[in-house]
Amino acid sequence: MKIGVYPGSFDPVTNGHMDVIERSSRMFDRVIVSVVRNYSKKPLFTYDERVELLSRATKDMPKVEIDSFEGLLIDYLHKRNANVIIKGLRAISDFEYEFQMALINRKLDPEIETIFLMTNSQYSFLSSSAVKEVAGLGGCIAGLVPESIIRDVYLKLKQK
Amino acid sequence: MKIGVYPGSFDPVTNGHMDVIERSSRMFDRVIVSVVRNYSKKPLFTYDERVELLSRATKDMPKVEIDSFEGLLIDYLHKRNANVIIKGLRAISDFEYEFQMALINRKLDPEIETIFLMTNSQYSFLSSSAVKEVAGLGGCIAGLVPESIIRDVYLKLKQK
Amino acid sequence: MKIGVYPGSFDPVTNGHMDVIERSSRMFDRVIVSVVRNYSKKPLFTYDERVELLSRATKDMPKVEIDSFEGLLIDYLHKRNANVIIKGLRAISDFEYEFQMALINRKLDPEIETIFLMTNSQYSFLSSSAVKEVAGLGGCIAGLVPESIIRDVYLKLKQK
Amino acid sequence: MKIGVYPGSFDPVTNGHMDVIERSSRMFDRVIVSVVRNYSKKPLFTYDERVELLSRATKDMPKVEIDSFEGLLIDYLHKRNANVIIKGLRAISDFEYEFQMALINRKLDPEIETIFLMTNSQYSFLSSSAVKEVAGLGGCIAGLVPESIIRDVYLKLKQK
Amino acid sequence: MKIGVYPGSFDPVTNGHMDVIERSSRMFDRVIVSVVRNYSKKPLFTYDERVELLSRATKDMPKVEIDSFEGLLIDYLHKRNANVIIKGLRAISDFEYEFQMALINRKLDPEIETIFLMTNSQYSFLSSSAVKEVAGLGGCIAGLVPESIIRDVYLKLKQK
Amino acid sequence: MKIGVYPGSFDPVTNGHMDVIERSSRMFDRVIVSVVRNYSKKPLFTYDERVELLSRATKDMPKVEIDSFEGLLIDYLHKRNANVIIKGLRAISDFEYEFQMALINRKLDPEIETIFLMTNSQYSFLSSSAVKEVAGLGGCIAGLVPESIIRDVYLKLKQK
Repeated sequence: MKIGVYPGSFDPVTNGHMDVIERSSRMFDRVIVSVVRNYSKKPLFTYDERVELLSRATKDMPKVEIDSFEGLLIDYLHKRNANVIIKGLRAISDFEYEFQMALINRKLDPEIETIFLMTNSQYSFLSSSAVKEVAGLGGCIAGLVPESIIRDVYLKLKQK
Repeated sequence: MKIGVYPGSFDPVTNGHMDVIERSSRMFDRVIVSVVRNYSKKPLFTYDERVELLSRATKDMPKVEIDSFEGLLIDYLHKRNANVIIKGLRAISDFEYEFQMALINRKLDPEIETIFLMTNSQYSFLSSSAVKEVAGLGGCIAGLVPESIIRDVYLKLKQK
Repeated sequence: MKIGVYPGSFDPVTNGHMDVIERSSRMFDRVIVSVVRNYSKKPLFTYDERVELLSRATKDMPKVEIDSFEGLLIDYLHKRNANVIIKGLRAISDFEYEFQMALINRKLDPEIETIFLMTNSQYSFLSSSAVKEVAGLGGCIAGLVPESIIRDVYLKLKQK
Repeated sequence: MKIGVYPGSFDPVTNGHMDVIERSSRMFDRVIVSVVRNYSKKPLFTYDERVELLSRATKDMPKVEIDSFEGLLIDYLHKRNANVIIKGLRAISDFEYEFQMALINRKLDPEIETIFLMTNSQYSFLSSSAVKEVAGLGGCIAGLVPESIIRDVYLKLKQK
Repeated sequence: MKIGVYPGSFDPVTNGHMDVIERSSRMFDRVIVSVVRNYSKKPLFTYDERVELLSRATKDMPKVEIDSFEGLLIDYLHKRNANVIIKGLRAISDFEYEFQMALINRKLDPEIETIFLMTNSQYSFLSSSAVKEVAGLGGCIAGLVPESIIRDVYLKLKQK
Repeated sequence: MKIGVYPGSFDPVTNGHMDVIERSSRMFDRVIVSVVRNYSKKPLFTYDERVELLSRATKDMPKVEIDSFEGLLIDYLHKRNANVIIKGLRAISDFEYEFQMALINRKLDPEIETIFLMTNSQYSFLSSSAVKEVAGLGGCIAGLVPESIIRDVYLKLKQK
């Protein structure tokens, strides 16, 4: 069974992420979308909230599982019997950072492969932080994040 | 009447900014250079000081107005009856961030257009933070910022 | 009166070009879309055919004029009393070539300004040569070029 | 059964290509490496010779099949019951061209996915044309192409 | 006597840095590797610890001297009678930042030249922060930093 | 004695090249500017004419020698007892091609080092082909090439 892991901070999940999830799920027997628990930057949503938002947005995708993890990505793949890391590529700056991480992951375990999917061009320049910036200033984020989580983003930002 | 808005943090205004301002003012009936009041990074100058420095540096340009704003850029353009956002492009990393913002602004209001002017090649690699780094270490910043504000930059850095 | 010139080879015009034309025409009193007659690469359509295809595709845009020219772009702008060169930016490689030309044009006449419009993200990776490659292999190009010229592209490729 | 197609000109196959072939073969049930028969550039080896060199270089990889095709890539995938296009990414310029083609292929058939594998960093800047340039000037190409084809490259270049 | 200065934060020194040091030392009579004392980001090692790790890693290189400095790089070069700044280039984002600094340094003293060495391709995507991220999560960093300092990195991270 | 080789097609030499030559000559005991005799593209000037133009433009630089060569660059460096290849970097696309060649040259002889100098920002987007394009259309190239060769460029283009 081919299992792919799609790791990220997903704070919150955007339609660009959803596009990668949908397309990966056609290529793998199972796709584990997993919230990384060791990112240092200040998040908007807690880890558990992000898992909940992802679960809601993917509830109609039977091959997709939502999870979170701490520690080395390679160790997590071993634990989950997964053999492929899935990444979405949007832009040049992604490209460089992701290549650095893919190189290091390959050094840690050459059996684990990283594949890159091209983000749909309409999401080429979309990121979680852009979503937060727009929503935080009262702008409309319909079309940028899954409809089922729009209200959560505004509510959360109001509490800050 | 064609009105363009040139938004930025201008902390402080550099000769690269001045180049964009001068050239835009030949293309529009009025150019509003506007200090963005919601940037999170720690500034050197307060918003009001930046408005003052910009006003001094552009005092001989009748078509240029200095202002500042808070909130969504698109809302500000509506309020000021402006229809074009002006941006200077220096380098690849600018390019990506600016495209992301232009895309989102277009989604928020498709009638508002973003145009990019190429920064004069002699300012290609000039930024406000480079100015602050050099001045903070006692280096000479003549030629990097308008002459009329050089003294302010050194004074301000001494107070920090 | 503000007149912008949008120069290119337009062999053939794509929906990415159409997007730039539509958006420029909101910003200028008149937009002259002009086929450059000194490109060395082997074209699919003759200059006159390209002018004809552009005219057909823009026939409902009263502010847009189709033309062609030979020689230095700057000389052409002088002749047409235009003061702005319009360029669409799609990708990093465009960026570098276009900056080089803008620099040289600015040196030839500092009063002429080049502005860049971001190509709509759905056309980010669309080019005339991609259209010809796909159509030449029998693929579908609907959505890539204006509907009114699709048949011409297939017919022309059959004659080659 | 998951079948991936790795298309290219392979004129000749390099160790960078071999790296992508080996790694893809761990992820798919079958990998079809296929020489594209409609490239316009002047080749060093004929299509049949390139198929022969690839067959020799991959003779110990049971899941890899060598083939060639003419026409639209998407049509070829349909014919071969394959659902994934495999591409190696080396550098920024690859990135842009490959994204353009991936976009167009997705438009032609949204069920077909393109995945990108990062070329091993030691091959980041290796290309078939660099191999031909070095060998053509009498330089050593050991380590750049599979050992079993080195002699063929020199012989072929001598005949030109 | 030609003296080159290789400035950086070296927190900690990586094998990519070692590659630049070794190659520079073949080109200059003396290479001064100097820890910059005015970087604002939170370091893992203190300045003195970084000097100590660099000294240990280069102890067999007679032409290499380890030092640290505060203030303007150009002033430091004058003090040390050095005339060349050495920089390693890994990736696009390095390129832009380094060009900006080289431009400003050239403005401050046109007699001082900055040269760029290409990082060995196997270290193209290696950085001190990647080393700290991997080691901090318990991953193996052999091959990424000089063998003589591996233990120090783990020890230091445990203390944090 | 440190000898650097600055190879290129120099068809014709531009002020960007002159900037690299002047700055290199401060760093080396001798700089050999050498016209590559195996470039395939159609030149404007013959090899001998290019050597002559370079000689004229550098006649006041005692440490600079003009030469031309055929074959592998590394072999040429051996023959001339040179140990460093000098390259000017202007833009992203240069960067990729030059890195590929530097990697291959390092593989052919690890003792030979390639160094990159940043082209002066005012020449960032200047190339020989841009010069020929402008001059060929009757535009002014003063400031783009050494004054002593301007007339030659126009004369040569008239003969074509």
